Amino acid sequence: MASSSTTKQFRVAITGVGLVGGEFISQLLIFPAPSPFRIVSLASSKTTLFNPDGLDLTGADAKWKESLASPFTKLSLPELTRELSGLVRPGSEVVFVDNTSSDDVARAYPDLLRYGVNVITPNKKAFSSDLELYERILASSAESGARFLNESTVGAGLPIISTLKDLVATGDRVTKIEGVFSGTMSYIFNEFSTGKSDGPSFSSVVRVARERGYTEPHPADDLNGADVARKLTILSRIIPSLKSALPEGYKSVKTTSLVPNELADVGTGDEFIARLPEFDTRFGQIRTQAAKENKVLRFVGVIDVTTGLIKADLEKYPLTHPFATSLGGSDNIIMFHTERYGARPLIVQGAGAGAAVTAMGVMSDLLKLL
Amino acid sequence: MASSSTTKQFRVAITGVGLVGGEFISQLLIFPAPSPFRIVSLASSKTTLFNPDGLDLTGADAKWKESLASPFTKLSLPELTRELSGLVRPGSEVVFVDNTSSDDVARAYPDLLRYGVNVITPNKKAFSSDLELYERILASSAESGARFLNESTVGAGLPIISTLKDLVATGDRVTKIEGVFSGTMSYIFNEFSTGKSDGPSFSSVVRVARERGYTEPHPADDLNGADVARKLTILSRIIPSLKSALPEGYKSVKTTSLVPNELADVGTGDEFIARLPEFDTRFGQIRTQAAKENKVLRFVGVIDVTTGLIKADLEKYPLTHPFATSLGGSDNIIMFHTERYGARPLIVQGAGAGAAVTAMGVMSDLLKLL
Repeated sequence: MASSSTTKQFRVAITGVGLVGGEFISQLLIFPAPSPFRIVSLASSKTTLFNPDGLDLTGADAKWKESLASPFTKLSLPELTRELSGLVRPGSEVVFVDNTSSDDVARAYPDLLRYGVNVITPNKKAFSSDLELYERILASSAESGARFLNESTVGAGLPIISTLKDLVATGDRVTKIEGVFSGTMSYIFNEFSTGKSDGPSFSSVVRVARERGYTEPHPADDLNGADVARKLTILSRIIPSLKSALPEGYKSVKTTSLVPNELADVGTGDEFIARLPEFDTRFGQIRTQAAKENKVLRFVGVIDVTTGLIKADLEKYPLTHPFATSLGGSDNIIMFHTERYGARPLIVQGAGAGAAVTAMGVMSDLLKLL
Repeated sequence: MASSSTTKQFRVAITGVGLVGGEFISQLLIFPAPSPFRIVSLASSKTTLFNPDGLDLTGADAKWKESLASPFTKLSLPELTRELSGLVRPGSEVVFVDNTSSDDVARAYPDLLRYGVNVITPNKKAFSSDLELYERILASSAESGARFLNESTVGAGLPIISTLKDLVATGDRVTKIEGVFSGTMSYIFNEFSTGKSDGPSFSSVVRVARERGYTEPHPADDLNGADVARKLTILSRIIPSLKSALPEGYKSVKTTSLVPNELADVGTGDEFIARLPEFDTRFGQIRTQAAKENKVLRFVGVIDVTTGLIKADLEKYPLTHPFATSLGGSDNIIMFHTERYGARPLIVQGAGAGAAVTAMGVMSDLLKLL
């Protein structure tokens, strides 16, 4: 829009070309001409396409998928970092977009940032692991002026991180954040617990969720609460008083796992699903107890800024609470309680997972660099 | 955060020092040092303080209020525009913050923008009046590269405009926007219509709302729906297919006024309140009818992108609808129905009026310029 900004050119390097990566590339390719974005690198786990002047991606999706499939050099992360840092110059920014969920790729951010390469990603790893990595990311960004943007790590395309940053930056005092942060957990408990004492068994709900692709291949990876704990870590670190509250990242969050102890070592998703019915009575009892109190069960994340308690847990909510009345499908819902918003919180709700809305969060971060 | 950005300096000229203006100044003054912002001008309707090197506002609120009260030169808008345009240079941006609701100030934006002065405002006038003014604003901004940001014109500090812009810019297709956009109307109908066929009279609810300062001095200025129509205009113009849909701005929105015809010419708020009970039966009947259908009444704004219908109207919603279950106080709630969000909309909810949250929206726009 502004003529001063459209002259700036952005070289974009994309790592990870799965569902989110593919959708992101589609959104980038339909950007109205003249696009300030030029894709200089596409990397899958096997192949790296790299051309400092821009890859020819006309002819749409088929073409890059084909090119990536052909045998080609794989650049290592340090090699790619070096190549990209060589492209950073005034008026021409470089952006590394990490659409993987890889821990290794996440650990490359400090170097990328230090060399002036901006980082945009839906990958939670770097921001929710040990504090030391996160602090190196902050320091590298401050050193070079390169930015890291990770809106889509929490709530995908929903404005969660940007809203929290705005609240903090404009001097509001956040007192509590409470929400259903996992689309999978949302779906499971919206189906399982509607306020009645009976209903479908827990294992049947999880089985259907898995069949529909709402869970990880091994449902324990959702039911252990780690995904929620990671999101809580990312948000907590944005709040000044909690910046260093979680030294080991998500592992420092008080997390209640829904994986029965007896199934902790079950190696495959199929076996896990086969054995989960053994615990239906246990989950049924919790549901009945909640129903007796006119409540529903929801797996939530809570950041209590005042007490410093950060937890991912199964909680009961009255039937009149927005987590009971307003929630459906696999929606996320996040409530920000702040001094300015007083007794009634600021609420954001909507799909918090899925390739299209996640890629949208990545794309809107990219547009913030304009 | 980024060293490359913090070197940029912003000269801020503030017009309007009422509730929102005062709160904005407070938020600006607590910005952590070294602040990139320097207030060069403060203007009330009577006085203009101006110093191109920055006003001395240390000693907090009392001081500037005192200075503005002392007899001083009033710069005309063209004079102020000329002074500010003289301060625009590379690395030093100028921002005009309009915290008034003045039509005259709004009409100065095209000149300010053309001279390279960024404009930030919660004032709806410029963006919701005739299309010609809006197009001059767009053209002036494009010409110089100066930006206009107006997040707080809709939903105050809630992320409404930024969310819509993100949806559009990333290529999602918005199909419908539906919401309770007026805090006053929200309060009135949350109190008046709870799903039961009886309850407090309409006039008593309006009277209490006025006593609490929730309405304009003359409640007809809220009940006529113009405020909602203005917000719908601002949002519609962000959607490509509706960009030119409202040639006369809010006047082109299909608006149902709740001001009884018989009271259309009542000049004062006091007289209006005194005569409103004559129409309690009429409003009571509408409530009873809604209750019979198990519905509540809400005054909503709807932008149906598919049909092009843009309306502000009193509608009925089932008791299970978020507008019935989730809404309370004087909250706004806005639902974005889009292709990507599918069957379940993206929802933003919270206080959409009040000095602190409005100033927060203004401040977060200012931070976007960083």
